[in-house]
Amino acid sequence: MWNVPLMENDSIIERPADQYTITKRYTEKAVAFIEQHAPSPFFLYLPHSMVHTPLFASAEFQGVNPRGTFGDVMAEVDWSVGQILQTLEDLQLTENTLVVFTSDNGPWLSMQQDGGSAGLLRDGKGTTWEGGMRVPGPISGMGSTLDLLPTIAALTGAVVPTDRILDGYDLTPVLRERSASPRDHFFFYRQRELYAARQGPYKAHYRTETCYVPETNRREHTPPLLYQLEQDPSEKYDRSAEQPEVLAAIQALVTAHAATVRERPAEMEKY
Amino acid sequence: MWNVPLMENDSIIERPADQYTITKRYTEKAVAFIEQHAPSPFFLYLPHSMVHTPLFASAEFQGVNPRGTFGDVMAEVDWSVGQILQTLEDLQLTENTLVVFTSDNGPWLSMQQDGGSAGLLRDGKGTTWEGGMRVPGPISGMGSTLDLLPTIAALTGAVVPTDRILDGYDLTPVLRERSASPRDHFFFYRQRELYAARQGPYKAHYRTETCYVPETNRREHTPPLLYQLEQDPSEKYDRSAEQPEVLAAIQALVTAHAATVRERPAEMEKY
Repeated sequence: MWNVPLMENDSIIERPADQYTITKRYTEKAVAFIEQHAPSPFFLYLPHSMVHTPLFASAEFQGVNPRGTFGDVMAEVDWSVGQILQTLEDLQLTENTLVVFTSDNGPWLSMQQDGGSAGLLRDGKGTTWEGGMRVPGPISGMGSTLDLLPTIAALTGAVVPTDRILDGYDLTPVLRERSASPRDHFFFYRQRELYAARQGPYKAHYRTETCYVPETNRREHTPPLLYQLEQDPSEKYDRSAEQPEVLAAIQALVTAHAATVRERPAEMEKY
Repeated sequence: MWNVPLMENDSIIERPADQYTITKRYTEKAVAFIEQHAPSPFFLYLPHSMVHTPLFASAEFQGVNPRGTFGDVMAEVDWSVGQILQTLEDLQLTENTLVVFTSDNGPWLSMQQDGGSAGLLRDGKGTTWEGGMRVPGPISGMGSTLDLLPTIAALTGAVVPTDRILDGYDLTPVLRERSASPRDHFFFYRQRELYAARQGPYKAHYRTETCYVPETNRREHTPPLLYQLEQDPSEKYDRSAEQPEVLAAIQALVTAHAATVRERPAEMEKY
């Protein structure tokens, strides 16, 4: 039913890929890669196919979790992460290896239980509500995957490009000393358009749109909807009428940001 | 504004009660009570006024928590629990004291942030959705405050009444040996009426009603709504059409239960 190819470098080695064993096989490859490259600095990028639908768990993980198939598959990814961390420990690399575990978006809600859950966060994948974009982290300050580039550059001594404005921050002081995050704002884009902006605990929604539903329900908000996320992480209680000065500050931030944005052709357009 | 009396035994000792210091004063009284009674068996019931609205935190706890006033007040109740536990530790009573920390209902949603949050659970106080009734516990099996009577009776060697049917279970094997809970079902009442029933992971809603809203929205469900709570704790995905045999089993349980229920005058009616 899912005629997806499994590739190694530029070659298709299996089609359709047996996805029941894909998490286990990715893990074995990753562990072997670390063992092979451990003597020198290395970079491993392990983008698991799971827990994206369609869901597959290997035989050892089928039926192990009360959360159903999604729970089984999550348990296997958890096992996989454990294998990677154990390998680093066995090779005595835990003190000088940065491990980042993150996700690209929230639950695909139209898949119901198979799509995951954002817990108390509102909505899911494809939206700029917290349930679509927020992932947990080990600190309570703000961080973004945009910050990975400057952070890893700082840790490795690499020089970041200076011919463009980078939207990321170096988070090494946060990671090393638990100091306050240098990031105090975040811009929520959907495709090429800014939908929302956060400054400190406040998030303003200029427009909202639920995704993967039969009819589009894009809405423009004037004034923007305003939520205090530390007190209201579920984005239930609009505070726009009570906090016009917060909205004005966010608008100033958005205007300054918009002036720095240059449209560029998408990377994929050249192919 | 809140002309509530503070009573000690049968006497009003302060009116209006200074609620800013009420959590601290309840705690001091509780600690003194334990210290006084520690040589012999004792029972302490400490029903904090907080975190019910209106919310009050003492000076030391105002502004300490990013969650706002509710967070401050919760931090003070957390401090209070710490004081109680520390007292038990200081008196070397932790090995033979049972501490139960629980709540009577979910968040009062119309109070917005001041009413609390049920996290990913649906709805809140006054309803028979999970957000109205479920509280966290240290094990994943089912338990109920109905089980406190038989459990404490078993722990203390007291004899429970035999002239009536008790709806509770003795949970001591669960607490002592982490064995499976003897409770596999729960009946969700609102006032005198059964609204929902759970058996294993499945919960059937015969009727639902949102509370503290301008217009009542009581709805009867035929067939009942059916949710698999282990896979869908937010009660989002109705499975009634797919699981008629589960609904039939729950209906049989409800029918058997209804045959045991005798209406009795409310305890307060005699006053």
